[in-house]
Parts: sequence; structure tokens; C-alpha cells
Amino acid sequence: MAVYTQVGDEDLDGFLRDYDIGTLTSFSGIAEGVENSNFLVRTTAGSWILTLYEKRVNPDDLPFFLELMRHLSGRGLSCPTPVAGRDGITLRQLNGRPAAMVTFLEGVWPRRIAPEHCRSLGTALARLHLSGGGFGRTRINALSLDAWRPLLASCQLEDREIYIGLFNELNVELRWLEAHWPRSLPHGVIHADLFPDNVFFLGHDVSGIIDFYFACNDFLAYDLAVCLNAWCFENDGSFNVTKARLLVSAYQAVRPLDEAECSALPALCRGAAIRFLLTRLYDWLNHPPGALVRPKDPMEYLKKLRAHQQVRGAGAYGL
Amino acid sequence: MAVYTQVGDEDLDGFLRDYDIGTLTSFSGIAEGVENSNFLVRTTAGSWILTLYEKRVNPDDLPFFLELMRHLSGRGLSCPTPVAGRDGITLRQLNGRPAAMVTFLEGVWPRRIAPEHCRSLGTALARLHLSGGGFGRTRINALSLDAWRPLLASCQLEDREIYIGLFNELNVELRWLEAHWPRSLPHGVIHADLFPDNVFFLGHDVSGIIDFYFACNDFLAYDLAVCLNAWCFENDGSFNVTKARLLVSAYQAVRPLDEAECSALPALCRGAAIRFLLTRLYDWLNHPPGALVRPKDPMEYLKKLRAHQQVRGAGAYGL
Repeated sequence: MAVYTQVGDEDLDGFLRDYDIGTLTSFSGIAEGVENSNFLVRTTAGSWILTLYEKRVNPDDLPFFLELMRHLSGRGLSCPTPVAGRDGITLRQLNGRPAAMVTFLEGVWPRRIAPEHCRSLGTALARLHLSGGGFGRTRINALSLDAWRPLLASCQLEDREIYIGLFNELNVELRWLEAHWPRSLPHGVIHADLFPDNVFFLGHDVSGIIDFYFACNDFLAYDLAVCLNAWCFENDGSFNVTKARLLVSAYQAVRPLDEAECSALPALCRGAAIRFLLTRLYDWLNHPPGALVRPKDPMEYLKKLRAHQQVRGAGAYGL
Repeated sequence: MAVYTQVGDEDLDGFLRDYDIGTLTSFSGIAEGVENSNFLVRTTAGSWILTLYEKRVNPDDLPFFLELMRHLSGRGLSCPTPVAGRDGITLRQLNGRPAAMVTFLEGVWPRRIAPEHCRSLGTALARLHLSGGGFGRTRINALSLDAWRPLLASCQLEDREIYIGLFNELNVELRWLEAHWPRSLPHGVIHADLFPDNVFFLGHDVSGIIDFYFACNDFLAYDLAVCLNAWCFENDGSFNVTKARLLVSAYQAVRPLDEAECSALPALCRGAAIRFLLTRLYDWLNHPPGALVRPKDPMEYLKKLRAHQQVRGAGAYGL
């Protein structure tokens, strides 16, 4: 949790002068941000979120992300909508950082996942996938199959005695994934990071989806695999097939999976597990002491990977 | 900047059930907090601030602080007003911490102080002092004259070669303050920590005063001395007498200082400087590596102290 770049009242006053969204009445840094600095900005006209993009976001990707949010909200999806300045430009600069103002969404993200959350998530995810149709830009998934082996190498596990076992296990898994990763499935724009803290709910109904800063073009069913990993495991490591069934069946009620997607699901879940395992592992091994953000536990995703390795078919996910 | 205690959606839902302030629509941790964990809570009925009191606040003091805010806002001062639960109780528990819900105030705190801010601050401070009249509870100032020598000792400067000079300088200053500290001046409830980040403005007008967690009973003019230190020095260390004059004259227009207060002002400013110098010094020398909050520079207040030592009368402050 952190705000990396400080913003003063005069900075913000000046920044808001380029917009037609009223005058500043209040603002505060949002403690929950991890990658970027976020501020809740209140004006005489309403509430907005100001994001300053920090080092981990490639500025070249920002037009993709902002245009995508605009496209999706234009299709009726509840997600932050970038607000343009008076000159029509959404991507601006503040305190030396790329910055954008987006609409504020009501809702809270669930700390404890109820089965009903998964049902509503499935519907929202399928709608997101359908709404992404016709979006004019593309961005490759920089954290998919081709990235995993270099990512594993960058962790330098083989140089450290205690990590040799883990290195060998992941090496074998990567070989399996390289052999079994689907070649062709329905694809389109995916969120690629749809963890509970990126989905707002009012009651058990999704009220909005945020944080599109990993969005990219990839197999649509891969997004479902990310969600199965992030939403359907209990804290004790067990897989809750009731949640999975609700998630997948609500998804299918809006966008049915084809046969190839169903049979690819176990491999997609293994891939989604190794993707988060590897980035967490890298952050775990490389986070500077005294960093504002505590790295997430990579081993959680090793356990999930091992669970998916036992799966013999999509039936394990309630299909 | 930090949120020390995490609060989940279900925790908060349950907590709000004891209030009559609508149902939860959004909440986020506020990055700017230093001592306590603060959350901006939005419900169907409006916006509120939820504070969880952390270790540095003595729970026994909380009734004083909460009752004071209620008293002051009842007298028309714009400050957070504690909201009682359905049972009439304001001081509650959440996630193992004492917790209170207070009203949300509009306004932003100024990063760059304009003279006009000081004028409006002077008026607000005098009103705060008058509004404190008749408040039934008392709390001694635990960070006044009697506390400074033990605080200096706890810094253990004399054990470290490089701090011997500083130790001697502060020792001499404490001896001076012990000899010159006023015995009797108009007293009452003071804020005692009225730094710019505790005063909200809309334009150049004070819209609210927050953070009463150092409030206590002491000389009223001591509060003015805290403000002269915190608001009237420029970043280059120079004292801006125009700001001081606006602050003090606006104060006097509401509550005139008597002769004893005027002549005590230089000593009060030295005392206010050493109070923040010593607590910052202690935090500087004792903050754990990797702490979420970066300690403030104590030397800023050594420079202010030295400036006040040169002063020969209240005229230096624009009186």
C-alpha cells in the first residue's frame, strides 16, 4: 500500500484547471495502491480517481489501457472511464508522471469470497469479454508462455542451493506447458489480473471492475483460469468446486465455452498459476529492504499449480 | 503515510450495522495518516472518516478527544464530529482497536502557505480557543516543560560523540526555558499540533480543523507559538514576519492577547520549537528500519529554535 508520488493542493488545482469537472473540494491518497499512486479527488461536480503512473507501467502502453476503459464503458461495462481535459486529451502529466483522471466507482472488494460473488463475477467476466469485441488496439500478453522461461531464469534459483528443488520442479512444469499450451482458442481483450481487489461489489453483485493495467490480447478462457486461481481456492489451499461451478456456469450463460476451451482449461489454469508464481517469486527475491509494499507469498501459487497438476479434465472445475 | 490495521468489507459492514448512517457503498484507506489508521467511508447517507487508534494514542485519552470534538462542533467550530452508534456510544471497537466514526470535512490542506492562509488560520485558532470554554474535561499537556528534560535524556545524545554539541546546546536551552517559562497565562483547551496538514481550506478560508489527538489544557498563547513555528517560516529557514503579523492580528481581532501573553511570546515560541525538535529527534534516532512512515527532520526545528533565541520581544512576531 503506498502513494509513491506526492501531489500538493496547488499542483492539483492547476491540473484540474485543464478539466471541466468543477473545483477541488477534497483529496486524499489511497493507501491500497500497489503499482501506481492513486488519489480520491472530490470536486464540486463529483468524485474522481486520479492515477499517477509509476515506473512499473510502460508509458507506451497507457493509450491502450485508457482507450480500452473508454471502449468498455462505452459498451455499458462498469469500469473507470477516463475523463478528457478541455482539449480532449485523457493522458496528461502531473509532477513528472503520466497521469489520468477517471470516474469513481461505487463498491467494495470482498476480503472473504462467498459463492455468490463467484456467480456475479462469472457474468461480469463474460460481459467484459463480449464488450472487448471491436476494440481497435492490441497489446500482446507480455506475461504469457514465451515470458515464463526468461522470468524463471531471472529469478536465478539454480544459483542457490535451497532453491534447486523448486527450480527443477518449475523447469519440468514449463516443459509440460510448452508441450500442452493451446495453439488456438477464441481470443480477444482480457483483463489478465482479475483478483478480488480489482472487482467491486455492492452486496453480492459486481458493481465495477478496475485496474486494467495488465489488460492485453490473449485466449479469453485464460482470464477464466486466472479467476479460478484467484477466487476459488480457500485459505487452507483447498479448491472450492462449488465456487468454480458458479463462476464457470454464470460465465457460460453469457458466453458459452467451446469444446477446445473446455479441454484446455486444466492447462490454462496451470499456466495462470505459474504466471503469478513466477512474478511473485521474482518480487520476493528482489524487493528492496524497507520497500513500502510487502511482496505477496509466491508459495501460495506453487500449491495452486500442484493442485491443477492433479486435474484430469475440465470436470474438476465444475464443467 | 500508512494504514496500520486492515479493515475488510465484512468487518466494516458489521461495524456499520451499529450506526444509523446508511449502508456501505465504498471505502478506502487514507494514505496520509501518520499516527492512526484512517479510512474514508461512503454510505448511502454520505461520507465519513473511520479512525482506528493505534499504539501511540493512549486509549484513556480517547474520551477527552472525542468529547472535545463534539463540544467544539456543538459551538459551531468546523471540526470532525464523532458519530454515535444507535446505543449513543461513539468510542467503539473494530478489529481489536478502539475506533470511532466522525463526520467528513471538505477542504484541502495547503502545501505552500500563502499569507492569506495565515490570516484565516488566526481567526480559526482564536475561535477554537473561545469555543473550548466550558468544556468539562481536562487533559494535561504531556509534552510541555516538565516533559522536555526526560525526552532529551531518552534521546541518549550524550552517549554519541557526534551529538555532544547538540546535547549541550539543548541542555543550555532547557535551563533557559526552565527559568523563563511563564508561570501563569490565560489557559484553556489548545490543539497543540496545528500544523498545515491539520487545517483544511477552501480557497484561502479555513474550512475545518482536524486531528485533535494532542489537544490538552495549556496556555492559549502556546498554540499561537506552535502556529508561528509551523506556518511562518519559509523553506529556506527565514521567518516571514508578514505571515506572522496576519496570523497574530487576525487572532487578536477575535481574542486579544493580554500584556503578559505578548511578552511571553518569544519564550513560548522557543518552547514550541524545542517540543517538536525533541519528539522528532527521538523518532529520528529510534525509528525502525523499514518503517512505513519516514521520520521528519528534527534539524528544521533546531534552526527555528535558534531564530527565536535571537528575538528580543514580541515585535519580532509583528505585534
